[in-house]
Amino acid sequence: MSPPAQNIYDNDAFFAGYGKLRRSVEGLGGAPEWPTLRAMLPAMARLRVVDLGCGFGWFCRFAREAGASHVLGLDLSEKMLARAREASSDGAIVYRRADLEHLDMPPAAFDLAYSSLALHYIANLKGLLETVHRALVPGGRLVFSVEHPLYTAPTTPDWSADDRGHKRWLLDRYLDEGERSTNWLAEGVIKQHRTIASYVNLLLELGFTMCRLEEWGPSEAEIANHPEWAVERDRPPFLLVSAAR
Amino acid sequence: MSPPAQNIYDNDAFFAGYGKLRRSVEGLGGAPEWPTLRAMLPAMARLRVVDLGCGFGWFCRFAREAGASHVLGLDLSEKMLARAREASSDGAIVYRRADLEHLDMPPAAFDLAYSSLALHYIANLKGLLETVHRALVPGGRLVFSVEHPLYTAPTTPDWSADDRGHKRWLLDRYLDEGERSTNWLAEGVIKQHRTIASYVNLLLELGFTMCRLEEWGPSEAEIANHPEWAVERDRPPFLLVSAAR
Repeated sequence: MSPPAQNIYDNDAFFAGYGKLRRSVEGLGGAPEWPTLRAMLPAMARLRVVDLGCGFGWFCRFAREAGASHVLGLDLSEKMLARAREASSDGAIVYRRADLEHLDMPPAAFDLAYSSLALHYIANLKGLLETVHRALVPGGRLVFSVEHPLYTAPTTPDWSADDRGHKRWLLDRYLDEGERSTNWLAEGVIKQHRTIASYVNLLLELGFTMCRLEEWGPSEAEIANHPEWAVERDRPPFLLVSAAR
Repeated sequence: MSPPAQNIYDNDAFFAGYGKLRRSVEGLGGAPEWPTLRAMLPAMARLRVVDLGCGFGWFCRFAREAGASHVLGLDLSEKMLARAREASSDGAIVYRRADLEHLDMPPAAFDLAYSSLALHYIANLKGLLETVHRALVPGGRLVFSVEHPLYTAPTTPDWSADDRGHKRWLLDRYLDEGERSTNWLAEGVIKQHRTIASYVNLLLELGFTMCRLEEWGPSEAEIANHPEWAVERDRPPFLLVSAAR
């Protein structure tokens, strides 16, 4: 039996920091990987959607605007669910507190399972994805993003810089999967490092079919607007996956 | 029209160096990733097999011993083909000189296409994999290895070492696909860097189904025998792919 999930988002300091991120303030449009992730989604009209780690509910509201018939937003954080509930009175969106380490969902209840930057916190990912597979109808889709394995791998995530300021990402422990402790917004945030092959093989072993894989980095146009993003092409920050039951 | 492939294996210095590698002298058993790649192969009995970049023909002979009915070994290097032909008089193995940049094969002629550490030299990989897809029967398999994208990405492949000797791989340009020039066994060997997502998406776009992905690194037992291999877990050297038409 796994312990309950780490509820870092209800930590006051973490929540305050997270609430100031561009993606928290501006929503999907403030997340640079969103256009790529959106392009991996199926047509949303009349879909029954579940969002695993819905946060402030930005995607749940997008799904409804795009035509989804029902949206279930799940999150462990009471603070985030409270903000999500405040932001919409749409009765077809239901927000519910859930621990993704021990999730229960009815079979064949959803056409789309979505998750943005949540699954790299989950220790029992196999258990969760088994539940998701069962909860999808045949042909249903799973679309998710996680922190890229190159980002989660190192013991001490950092860049080196040479004499001319050229930066290189200091990679180690890529194949050593498991817990990593980082100090992002709060001390000792625990993430689960997995390789790209592990994500793909876990899906295939559970009976999913791979539809698309993206390693997101900024385009030339985005780098022109945000020169500080250029290094993200050296070490992509996000892995995006689309699979079908 | 792409230029003909670089024929580095017929360069005398390269060929001499390559011929001394453990995998050249000992064959498949001298390639540490072979057990993992072998586990990704289908049952070989009665299969018609093509080996893209067959080198000295080790895999072609293995395929016949494992029950394949016909094996076609393709390589650009006359020197390697000569050695392959010398090593076996089995009439069911045919060796033929071929430029994988401009390969022609009959439709639905093979049950298995195999390639070991050759496809990262190919500029027109899409053209080659289109040909392979067409040359496989429905349900046929493509199993291949390439140098891992983490290995091919950097401008200057190298490790950094801290004061205590802890090594980290200096990663840059992971998302910048295209030519890389390295000095492995000879000067100015040209490889084509692609991301993992590019390999996967190219296969999916051509109509392949993903079966398995492996990022090979040594096991604990292998590191006990070869302590110098430990860093390969920090930056895996090989990407192995199994897909089905």
